[in-house]
Amino acid sequence: MIRIIAPRSGVAFELKRGECLRVIDPQGEQVADLVAFNRRDTSEAISSGRSIDYASKIYLTTGDPIYSNRSSVLLRIVEDTVGRHDFLVSPCSAEMFRIIYGDAVPHQGCFGNLAAALAPYGIAPDAIPTAFNVFMNVPVDAATGAIRVEPPLSRAGDYIVFEAQIDLLIGLTACSAGQSNNFTYKPIHYEVNGHD
Amino acid sequence: MIRIIAPRSGVAFELKRGECLRVIDPQGEQVADLVAFNRRDTSEAISSGRSIDYASKIYLTTGDPIYSNRSSVLLRIVEDTVGRHDFLVSPCSAEMFRIIYGDAVPHQGCFGNLAAALAPYGIAPDAIPTAFNVFMNVPVDAATGAIRVEPPLSRAGDYIVFEAQIDLLIGLTACSAGQSNNFTYKPIHYEVNGHD
Repeated sequence: MIRIIAPRSGVAFELKRGECLRVIDPQGEQVADLVAFNRRDTSEAISSGRSIDYASKIYLTTGDPIYSNRSSVLLRIVEDTVGRHDFLVSPCSAEMFRIIYGDAVPHQGCFGNLAAALAPYGIAPDAIPTAFNVFMNVPVDAATGAIRVEPPLSRAGDYIVFEAQIDLLIGLTACSAGQSNNFTYKPIHYEVNGHD
Repeated sequence: MIRIIAPRSGVAFELKRGECLRVIDPQGEQVADLVAFNRRDTSEAISSGRSIDYASKIYLTTGDPIYSNRSSVLLRIVEDTVGRHDFLVSPCSAEMFRIIYGDAVPHQGCFGNLAAALAPYGIAPDAIPTAFNVFMNVPVDAATGAIRVEPPLSRAGDYIVFEAQIDLLIGLTACSAGQSNNFTYKPIHYEVNGHD
């Protein structure tokens, strides 16, 4: 069953070991921030630093594992029709909208949406790690290290599938940042399936 | 007073608001992993994701702030004679030495050294964030996203100075990973001064 995350909102749910999470961009050019925690001990969470280190690359795609802060594999990417996602930058937040966009009355962003969705599971905002930013397109200038946030390469119907390696708690959003989504706010679809 | 961190070891100490921490590479081509926590509430720590996002670059240098997971500035880089440091990859660890180097009996790495040095301050290993890897030289291939760990650009006597923006707890190492230090293990020197 396909579930819908409304524009600029987020959800949390359990994903059991062996289950697959398909994150779909229904209209194209929309980002979904994903975080994952060990369901049985939520002090263990995805780690961009370890995942990038062990993969020796910043752009993860089919076949690549997403490691935790304890160097265990929490998720594995098993399908990916886009091939460009970001694991460098934090979820957008009220502070980010103030600092980067100069918004006087900022939206709570993916960070606020994740915090609200994860609170019932006992996750404190401080414990939300750098997200795996599905479909987010962040090129790096190799010489200067400058990054840019460009429109996603995803087109309507594109998707990525993650397989849970242990029982997980997932946080997932339809991203709230204009720059990340080519300045339109769209929904994200997702689906949980048994091991296939 | 210059203090010495022996090869493949680490320390923790307090750094008060306005104090400057100078991290010196005494022999050249040696990395120092740095983490920082709010001294009064150690759930607040440096965040690579927020720092990279707000700076819009992966290579931070003079003038750049290092943000926390709460989007506050914990440190500011006020001098830097090298200009190339890493904020992408996690501290080296026993798991890293197993996964990347294939070591059967791995060293505990910077992660183990930081965990041991920070334990008396009540910091759990799970709470150690991606470090700011002083002098670490990690070029990125813009097209593929591949990263390489190359010898540091630092030469004997090179240094970087951080100014504390609030009272902090600092963890600092002389890095234990061969690749990061051109395959020799050297000390790191540091010095704490009042605002100058």
